[in-house]
Amino acid sequence: MRMYDVIKRKRDGFELTPEEINYFVAGYSEGTIPDYQASALAMAIFYQGMNARETAALTMEMAASGDMVDLSPIPGIKVDKHSTGGVGDKTSLAVVPIVASCGVPVAKMSGRGLGHTGGTLDKLESIPGLTISIDEERFFDIVNKVGCAIIGQTANLVPADKRLYALRDVTATVDSIPLIASSVMSKKIASGANAIVLDVKCGSGAFMKTAEDATALAQAMVEIGEHVGRTTVALVTDMDRPLGNKVGNSLEVIEAVEVLRGTAPADIADTCLELAANMLMLAGKGTLDECRTLAQHNIDNGAAFEKLCQMVEAQGGDSSVLRDTSRFAQAPCVHEVRAPRDGFVYHMNTEEVGTAAAALGAGRETIEASIDPTAGIDLARKTGDAVKAGDVLATLYSSEEERLYNGERILLDAYDIREEAPVAIPHFLARVSRDGVERLV
Amino acid sequence: MRMYDVIKRKRDGFELTPEEINYFVAGYSEGTIPDYQASALAMAIFYQGMNARETAALTMEMAASGDMVDLSPIPGIKVDKHSTGGVGDKTSLAVVPIVASCGVPVAKMSGRGLGHTGGTLDKLESIPGLTISIDEERFFDIVNKVGCAIIGQTANLVPADKRLYALRDVTATVDSIPLIASSVMSKKIASGANAIVLDVKCGSGAFMKTAEDATALAQAMVEIGEHVGRTTVALVTDMDRPLGNKVGNSLEVIEAVEVLRGTAPADIADTCLELAANMLMLAGKGTLDECRTLAQHNIDNGAAFEKLCQMVEAQGGDSSVLRDTSRFAQAPCVHEVRAPRDGFVYHMNTEEVGTAAAALGAGRETIEASIDPTAGIDLARKTGDAVKAGDVLATLYSSEEERLYNGERILLDAYDIREEAPVAIPHFLARVSRDGVERLV
Repeated sequence: MRMYDVIKRKRDGFELTPEEINYFVAGYSEGTIPDYQASALAMAIFYQGMNARETAALTMEMAASGDMVDLSPIPGIKVDKHSTGGVGDKTSLAVVPIVASCGVPVAKMSGRGLGHTGGTLDKLESIPGLTISIDEERFFDIVNKVGCAIIGQTANLVPADKRLYALRDVTATVDSIPLIASSVMSKKIASGANAIVLDVKCGSGAFMKTAEDATALAQAMVEIGEHVGRTTVALVTDMDRPLGNKVGNSLEVIEAVEVLRGTAPADIADTCLELAANMLMLAGKGTLDECRTLAQHNIDNGAAFEKLCQMVEAQGGDSSVLRDTSRFAQAPCVHEVRAPRDGFVYHMNTEEVGTAAAALGAGRETIEASIDPTAGIDLARKTGDAVKAGDVLATLYSSEEERLYNGERILLDAYDIREEAPVAIPHFLARVSRDGVERLV
Repeated sequence: MRMYDVIKRKRDGFELTPEEINYFVAGYSEGTIPDYQASALAMAIFYQGMNARETAALTMEMAASGDMVDLSPIPGIKVDKHSTGGVGDKTSLAVVPIVASCGVPVAKMSGRGLGHTGGTLDKLESIPGLTISIDEERFFDIVNKVGCAIIGQTANLVPADKRLYALRDVTATVDSIPLIASSVMSKKIASGANAIVLDVKCGSGAFMKTAEDATALAQAMVEIGEHVGRTTVALVTDMDRPLGNKVGNSLEVIEAVEVLRGTAPADIADTCLELAANMLMLAGKGTLDECRTLAQHNIDNGAAFEKLCQMVEAQGGDSSVLRDTSRFAQAPCVHEVRAPRDGFVYHMNTEEVGTAAAALGAGRETIEASIDPTAGIDLARKTGDAVKAGDVLATLYSSEEERLYNGERILLDAYDIREEAPVAIPHFLARVSRDGVERLV
């Protein structure tokens, strides 16, 4: 077999065989296939796509390129959860304890990522004492005792995807649905869960800008899951506004606590409930409706919140900051951003809200950079809200005074305030499962 | 400027600016742009194409990446000639002396190429004593005294194209009309001629399999020439059969001599006359008809043949082998391939005829390999000819007995002999100039 022929066949629109995909992933991992052939193939895939068989084969080959976590020491059906990312997305911090409180174990491995805010790990690390560096034996032990844990990915998880993603990032071949889908799913599959619930975001703060693209990505990932024996459900949800009101690291932990206490804004509360209900359903806890009721019950009775506290303590964290969130370290510099005129928040450039958070210190620009756990934004007005000139739109937090001005400038640009009110945006757009696409709008 | 954005803009179908093309070629030549980004761009160009402005800019940037030959020490209009290659294509060997014999200087630089037979240089080197390694001063001197010379390209001609072509060759991005056109034209432009005549082949022995593709390539190259001030004319000619009867190195020199003596088969004789006439026309020697007459006159009166002998002697060669071609070194092993049945040669897989010639020793597989100048094929029957079982289809020449059997096997596979006669194939398909496409069929 020659890589030249693999590229040419994909270039000309043929389906790659499992053997060809194995040849590519194995050769690329070993270094016998050079980057310049891999990037040519990625560009050909960008144009020609891959069908469900090819995408599933690529996913499994990448998953098998490194460690495959075996979760069998944890009894029961293990359901994982993944979000395609966005601004203010703190769902894992609430969903994991909700699900665990209902008797379904969650053994979650997360990444850090280079984003506007840190990843789930960075958010968790804003809790004093908490560690995400936990070996496999202790990880399983915590999950078996407490019901859940969230730790860092092992270094050797899907090395083929790591190398390919880095290459795609510099060759304009990231935005290909089969390549995105196989990248996400290879990590989920290598992480060992039996079933997977995906939250695929769409809108100005998401990678997928349109509902069509987000639904297509959701379908591709569900198809992969079904192909490889991992039941997968995807929700397509709105990210044209930030999710919830808080964007940052400790700020997002605080809002996750609000979700578990029933005091969070509706969009983030509903999203967490729906993700948790779908995970419970995949774990065999009843119909979706029954699972919603079960999850809501454990939020209402405090069991879910207690589960978060137990998990944090098992990972060495100080749960007193969760019980009294005013005990989180506070940013020394605070600034209120005010509306320049009367009207309605007609639209928010949500990616720019994320950029503003990064400007305040909430994100990192390079893998080595550290983040400011206290930095971020608390939004008082979002898309659809009426505002008067001088109303507080948002409160900014940072450790450095100058960052506030930069953050304010970017944030004000992200707000589009007009005289007219916008058409209301539904939050849930579609649910994709083996049964097909259920449109919720 | 970032290469990422250049790739992304082409990927998304935008026209690249001259600045972007300059950035790419300069960066790729210097090594600051890596192969993996260049191959991703090449694949994007494969799908999105390039318009005439982009293709001309790429051509000129590649031409300027190395030495630009200045032919001004040679008085008059210098016309170059290029063929896109095929099997049995010995036109340069006859056309150059025809044109020179009519008073138009031809300062030709050729390549060797990795092909079924050697390139023009290899064919010339089958003449005892002849050298193609001649420095520029002596090159100009020969052209000024004799009227023509054919030498090897300088080492530093279009290095950007060399590097890009080698990359395209292993990333399945060769067959892109703008990339092929800019590759050919960058070499012609760097070689310094004022005007260019192209012979674009099409059919089973050519790179372009269909008349449409060959015509599109011809148009792209003519557009480049016009864009950069080099008048360019392209003939689209048939290569669904081998050109002429002889395929090899000294064999092709012998057939070129037959062209100059008026004893060659019609297809090769007509092709040479037409190419020469177009070159003469671009040099201002009259209308195309007048130039045909002029060229034919100099073939008939022996002036063209004498010009070849003068050129060979000026380049150190022994012209006595041209005056008596039986004096060429003879292959020790000869074998006649006979028709297995009665019928008509319905079709020839011309590329396989080339492969048979290579199997006999006429080509080289690696740049370092040497070729056997005496090896090759003399075809007695071509497409359209009637055959009886046992008739000689072709005579094979080689230095090694075993090669004959391999060559025979491949050559027999290349012949498709049927009961019915094929529809006759015209030899000249189109003529493309600044005035557009003149279809000749």
